[in-house]
Amino acid sequence: MLSHLLQNILSSLNPARIGKAAPLRGRRVTAMAKKGKASQGRWRNPGRIWGLAMVASLALNLTLVVVLVVFLYKDHSGGLGTCAAGAAKESKVAAAAPPLVQDKEDMAAGQEIAVSATSGTRPVSKDSVINLDHGDPTMFESFWRWMGDRGSIVIPAWQTMSYFSDVTNVCWFLEPEFAQEVRRLHNLIGNAVTQDRYIVVGTGSTQLFQAALYALSPSDASEPISVVSAVPYYSSYPAVTGYLRSGLFRWAGDAYTYKGDKYIELVCSPNNPDGSIREAVLNSEAGRTIHDLAYYWPQYTPISSPADHDIMLFTVSKSTGHAGTRLGWAMVKDKDVAKKMVKFIELNTIGVSKDSQLRAAKILKVVSDGYELPNTENTSKLFDYGRRLMTMRWEKLREAVKASGIFSLPEFPSSTCKFTGERTVTNPAFAWLKCEKEGIEDCESFLRSHGMLTRSGRHFGVEPKYVRVSMLDRDETFELLIERLSSLN
Amino acid sequence: MLSHLLQNILSSLNPARIGKAAPLRGRRVTAMAKKGKASQGRWRNPGRIWGLAMVASLALNLTLVVVLVVFLYKDHSGGLGTCAAGAAKESKVAAAAPPLVQDKEDMAAGQEIAVSATSGTRPVSKDSVINLDHGDPTMFESFWRWMGDRGSIVIPAWQTMSYFSDVTNVCWFLEPEFAQEVRRLHNLIGNAVTQDRYIVVGTGSTQLFQAALYALSPSDASEPISVVSAVPYYSSYPAVTGYLRSGLFRWAGDAYTYKGDKYIELVCSPNNPDGSIREAVLNSEAGRTIHDLAYYWPQYTPISSPADHDIMLFTVSKSTGHAGTRLGWAMVKDKDVAKKMVKFIELNTIGVSKDSQLRAAKILKVVSDGYELPNTENTSKLFDYGRRLMTMRWEKLREAVKASGIFSLPEFPSSTCKFTGERTVTNPAFAWLKCEKEGIEDCESFLRSHGMLTRSGRHFGVEPKYVRVSMLDRDETFELLIERLSSLN
Repeated sequence: MLSHLLQNILSSLNPARIGKAAPLRGRRVTAMAKKGKASQGRWRNPGRIWGLAMVASLALNLTLVVVLVVFLYKDHSGGLGTCAAGAAKESKVAAAAPPLVQDKEDMAAGQEIAVSATSGTRPVSKDSVINLDHGDPTMFESFWRWMGDRGSIVIPAWQTMSYFSDVTNVCWFLEPEFAQEVRRLHNLIGNAVTQDRYIVVGTGSTQLFQAALYALSPSDASEPISVVSAVPYYSSYPAVTGYLRSGLFRWAGDAYTYKGDKYIELVCSPNNPDGSIREAVLNSEAGRTIHDLAYYWPQYTPISSPADHDIMLFTVSKSTGHAGTRLGWAMVKDKDVAKKMVKFIELNTIGVSKDSQLRAAKILKVVSDGYELPNTENTSKLFDYGRRLMTMRWEKLREAVKASGIFSLPEFPSSTCKFTGERTVTNPAFAWLKCEKEGIEDCESFLRSHGMLTRSGRHFGVEPKYVRVSMLDRDETFELLIERLSSLN
Repeated sequence: MLSHLLQNILSSLNPARIGKAAPLRGRRVTAMAKKGKASQGRWRNPGRIWGLAMVASLALNLTLVVVLVVFLYKDHSGGLGTCAAGAAKESKVAAAAPPLVQDKEDMAAGQEIAVSATSGTRPVSKDSVINLDHGDPTMFESFWRWMGDRGSIVIPAWQTMSYFSDVTNVCWFLEPEFAQEVRRLHNLIGNAVTQDRYIVVGTGSTQLFQAALYALSPSDASEPISVVSAVPYYSSYPAVTGYLRSGLFRWAGDAYTYKGDKYIELVCSPNNPDGSIREAVLNSEAGRTIHDLAYYWPQYTPISSPADHDIMLFTVSKSTGHAGTRLGWAMVKDKDVAKKMVKFIELNTIGVSKDSQLRAAKILKVVSDGYELPNTENTSKLFDYGRRLMTMRWEKLREAVKASGIFSLPEFPSSTCKFTGERTVTNPAFAWLKCEKEGIEDCESFLRSHGMLTRSGRHFGVEPKYVRVSMLDRDETFELLIERLSSLN
């Protein structure tokens, strides 16, 4: 059984087996072998030191060119892009009897991460408990293994030792090469307006979310501003808003039932947990919005147009799969808001890891290169890989759910993705599963008793008949999920 | 002038010129000369094309460096041409009498970092404004350049992608190899008890400080717990405690004047800003302490014994100089406190950059190796390097202060360092300078008018006759400081 699993794991490391890319594998190996020979030949002649000196010199050239380009880039400015909020009508999920706000807060704060012995690990046998509670994006590991050294970074001990990255920037701890690759990627994908936007880098989008709350809260108000989001909302929102009992902002629950004209509304689109495409529910002059666009990437949803909101949050966790790097970025329209977000991060962590920024810059570069460099193999295109895998997984999940006859899943309309040019549906990072069978009120407990850890609807402000199931785990975990769901009835 | 500066910069990159290490320099230079000859021999072999390519690459490097320097110079010369213009950029306003607690909080929150055009940069001319406001530990850069590739890390794109590092650990996002090197280094130096202690990793010790406040605050109290520290206290404490107006804890100022038996006392030792060795001022069953030991390392102070407090905070910023890596660690006695600190970091940033942890693990390893591996050169011992440099700088500073006749500095008793075995005094990371001259009430403004940015005593809870001056900047900045202080009277 173990050897079977091992085989599964090994084969899962080869993205070429997904979809049509298989034939390219052979070609790549040959090319690499040739390269190896060539460099062996070169080693003997000029000697190691010259090779190294040359590489070092070229690397210095490259660094200097990048630094220069950044300098030149700073002088460049252009006009504002047009506003085109690209969002379809979202589907509201019924909320039966959500618990009280305070209960929800305590519950969420206590259980948000729920680290168990199975978190982040591979199942060791067919009977293992599988953990699909978190959105740990380990499915992308296969892609990056396949890419080999292309995404590697080297950081010498003397590099980026200072607190400061670029004091001429509003965000003084933002590494210029990371900012450059962020703009390049958004322009390639067409999922966000980048012109005349301030980039604020954060220790994951969770830190940026708090920075945005801090920036949008009036500092002179007599009581904290209300923070709301339409149900089902991301389970972290109440916990992260409430854990310090801030006098600046407080969690106020479902946006649909909120009364008042001063608020901060959180809009997650595609939505975590249910994958719906969303727009703000409330509308008031005094209201403010934060758009969490962690999942607005082509592997999850058709890209309808460049998003153009006041504050947009993104993260490498969900775009490229690098959750452990803890890196996110905000695209911010207003300079004063950007400045206040930067102030929050100064006070919270005195900036953001330069190592993570350098690594993410390289990762994003490799992703863009995969599309922009000539003659790139299909297997080097991250979003193509992601979309193929997500489409396959959703097909399998829908079959398994149908076979069991006791669950239901949301349906999504299809539309044309402006990035791929293809007509596709949303394939969310989470399955929002509902137990339809009579007698099962608590779907999370039911699935847990069958060895599957998921997150109850209660954490998302709705009834416990719903659970959120991660679709981003490794192949062998996902296969076990499909097997088990199919066998339930 | 530029060539003079360039020479300065190049010479500052060689740590061997500090203190007694000079003889080693000769040895090393000879070795390098030999290497040079050997490679000259190789010049003839590899053929013209390599020579030409190398020359072309080096020429391009040189061109780019020149262009960059011109750019940098152009960018800054406008603001920094004269001291007055540079000073005008800074918006700090002089205040004669120390303001009230609330004012101080707002002030500190607004100006804590005070990023100016000179932050983190080298002075471009003899007249440049020099920024000694922050404790940016750039002086360590020379050491790490000298160490070459020894501290470099390579991170492949597929590594540490998961949120989780080790779910069997209380701190599930702590990389095991980082934890191992932390324990190894403390055991080597003898500055902290490691046995039966939980390690909690944080995005710098600033995040850990907040995690500790969260962990020590009673969750059922009707009002926030008071957070105090003896004057002069670190200027970030009020700002970081207060910026979110938490209902769990609130800044309550000077520990000496605090009345009550419930509190959290912050003890920084050696103290930022004044370098004094400290113990808790308050004593109550219900009181809690957090020990900030960022500067309890042999380059700053004799190590008297392994510190053994409930919560001890450390950071790579001040121990090895890697401020940009944003990495700190807490040594925690109580498991429940450690768990609550971990919960804070979960909610605040969902863990800590794995890239920073891998890098810090390597850096700490190289530091310990420098002492524990046989036949290591003296120049590879970080703390020896740091102590020699700090001793030299403090001697120069005391001479300059004496020459001017208008300042005073704290004096420190000498004692035997259990790590080095030598009798030494404290050489703090900051100079706590007092203007003794009549008529100068605001020392920070006075120094600013002479092109030196420092941090006023007001931010530390005391009178503006005091300023804090960073002793950790690069050589050329420090030399300018000495020149200017000596010439004042």
